[in-house]
Amino acid sequence: MPETAPAVPVIEVPIALGERSYGISIGCGLLEGASDWPGVPASTQALIVTNTTVGPLYAARLKAALQRRHPTVHVIELPDGEAFKDWPTLNLVFDRLLGDACDRKTVLYALGGGVVGDMTGFAAAAYMRGVPFVQVPTTLLAQVDSSVGGKTAINHPLGKNMIGAFYQPRRVVCDLDTLTTLPARELSAGLAEVIKYGPIADLEFLGWLEAHMDGLMARDTALLAQAVRRSCEIKAAVVGQDERESGLRAILNFGHTFGHAIEAGLGYGEWLHGEAVGCGMVMALSLSRRLGGIDAGFESRVKALIQRAGLPVVGPALGASRYLELMRVDKKAEAGEIRFVVIDRPGSAALRGAPDALVREVIEDACRPG
Amino acid sequence: MPETAPAVPVIEVPIALGERSYGISIGCGLLEGASDWPGVPASTQALIVTNTTVGPLYAARLKAALQRRHPTVHVIELPDGEAFKDWPTLNLVFDRLLGDACDRKTVLYALGGGVVGDMTGFAAAAYMRGVPFVQVPTTLLAQVDSSVGGKTAINHPLGKNMIGAFYQPRRVVCDLDTLTTLPARELSAGLAEVIKYGPIADLEFLGWLEAHMDGLMARDTALLAQAVRRSCEIKAAVVGQDERESGLRAILNFGHTFGHAIEAGLGYGEWLHGEAVGCGMVMALSLSRRLGGIDAGFESRVKALIQRAGLPVVGPALGASRYLELMRVDKKAEAGEIRFVVIDRPGSAALRGAPDALVREVIEDACRPG
Repeated sequence: MPETAPAVPVIEVPIALGERSYGISIGCGLLEGASDWPGVPASTQALIVTNTTVGPLYAARLKAALQRRHPTVHVIELPDGEAFKDWPTLNLVFDRLLGDACDRKTVLYALGGGVVGDMTGFAAAAYMRGVPFVQVPTTLLAQVDSSVGGKTAINHPLGKNMIGAFYQPRRVVCDLDTLTTLPARELSAGLAEVIKYGPIADLEFLGWLEAHMDGLMARDTALLAQAVRRSCEIKAAVVGQDERESGLRAILNFGHTFGHAIEAGLGYGEWLHGEAVGCGMVMALSLSRRLGGIDAGFESRVKALIQRAGLPVVGPALGASRYLELMRVDKKAEAGEIRFVVIDRPGSAALRGAPDALVREVIEDACRPG
Repeated sequence: MPETAPAVPVIEVPIALGERSYGISIGCGLLEGASDWPGVPASTQALIVTNTTVGPLYAARLKAALQRRHPTVHVIELPDGEAFKDWPTLNLVFDRLLGDACDRKTVLYALGGGVVGDMTGFAAAAYMRGVPFVQVPTTLLAQVDSSVGGKTAINHPLGKNMIGAFYQPRRVVCDLDTLTTLPARELSAGLAEVIKYGPIADLEFLGWLEAHMDGLMARDTALLAQAVRRSCEIKAAVVGQDERESGLRAILNFGHTFGHAIEAGLGYGEWLHGEAVGCGMVMALSLSRRLGGIDAGFESRVKALIQRAGLPVVGPALGASRYLELMRVDKKAEAGEIRFVVIDRPGSAALRGAPDALVREVIEDACRPG
């Protein structure tokens, strides 16, 4: 048992996906109980995939707990950052798995943020055509985003997340204690994905976030638990209706089309993904207003919340043409037409095309300081 | 319409896998009708993935037919051979897809043998987390083996097919005309996977193969059509019960555990996969006899058929220890124990462990010339 009693009761969020269903646990002191996590198959070997930042903080603790479940627990630390979300780095995981003669029952544990989760998930999907994996997200962004949905991927020099798989974990464990060591920039980046759920799906949650943003920024554990829970619930409801993103699920990419262009245009890793999404939401709100879905009041309200979360609201000046070029290779684009997630009325989102001229106005406005 | 009338009626084999069901067409002159193949979704772009051997023979014909279905049809020729079934070569496909701004509806066509099929299938599984693909196998081995089952993969320096996915095509088209240009060694390699189905599942088919081996070696189209049909039917029946190889499906790997060791031990590409499987079946038959599943008469009978198909029946002298070492990293191994597919009675196969000493005897016997 951990010495410190949990600060908040453990919350369980079930993710209903038929035979691929699993559960998310949200609470404090959960790493220490890893040998009792439900839903994880038995195996003689396990591999903890982490990075050089998170590994030194938490890998030993997780390994000690897992050794009561798996006789052999390996650890691999990948270099940290979006710039390493690539094939050569992924291949280090395969080298390790094969070098240690890990069989097809070996369980992979992703201990880290979104990059570690996406890479470990894809490694698990592809190693011997599929081994079980468990997500242990240690950033707010990974807890609210990659813990639901089964999207795994690596980047290609010509595009983000272009090579991957839909592959579900057997269990997700969000230990809120790991957020205590999160840099402030990354806390803000995570809040971008939390805020997202308000305008696209839940106005009540938007109001709750406005009321509690100061507490969230101060890392109040009970508030963070509620923010993670509600984000996962909304995402689960959407993903449950559209696991492979043939339609509805695309609304979860609110702010991401513009955001991906920012990340690609600056070079991956310059801005954090959540920072780019925060600023991308500002652009998507502006587009939504110009298309008539929301009024200027709603736009300002959400933009103010994004700003209170410590996120950038002025886009990098790449030039509108460069933004458009980058957005045309977005995965949601079809036959060269960019499809934007826009708010069609407060609390509801839809996929829409938009005239290039209008998109240029949005970008030029959003990249103008002040 | 093709100028030459089909030599044999087109045979359709349905593959029942729920929402992932598809059909296999077997016949002559099928490439020319590519714009009418059923089950292929509409898309503005398509990419034919082939290699430098098959491309010059058939890519133009397939492209011309497909242009009546997809406005833009790209072709990429990969270097030919098992030695190129690796990440750098696979990445050429991703480079091309992204370079041509192919969206997530783009259809991939695999035009070639097993290597092209496995790589194209994995590229389709991973590109933007999954795009549709069609198999157009041009070798006998690919027609009878990779056209059913949805196994896709690339090799890793430490093991064959270690990185991949279970991913089903939308349609498989076996144009028997493409077998006319197949080198004799590759025809034999394909027959290894055809012969396999006799001892593991269908003694009647084994008798039919004994009666018609001369005609098959002479490339009698009507006989080849029947051999492809029956092989696909048997494989489909097995895969339909166990899509992700949790149990039964492993019997399809008869001869493959030894065969993979031969391929890995000699270096991929030295022997053809089918040659290694042919010789691997000789070893697996010997092991089956020693474990009491079959008598010496049945062993000799199947070995004679393998030899009549022009396949090697004497293994390369790598030394028994090296064979054992290589087999311990086989995907079917669990916690270091090698699991062999053996004939437990004529027409039936099962997974078994075996004492190292017995396996050493099998290998030493099978690697002794004469």
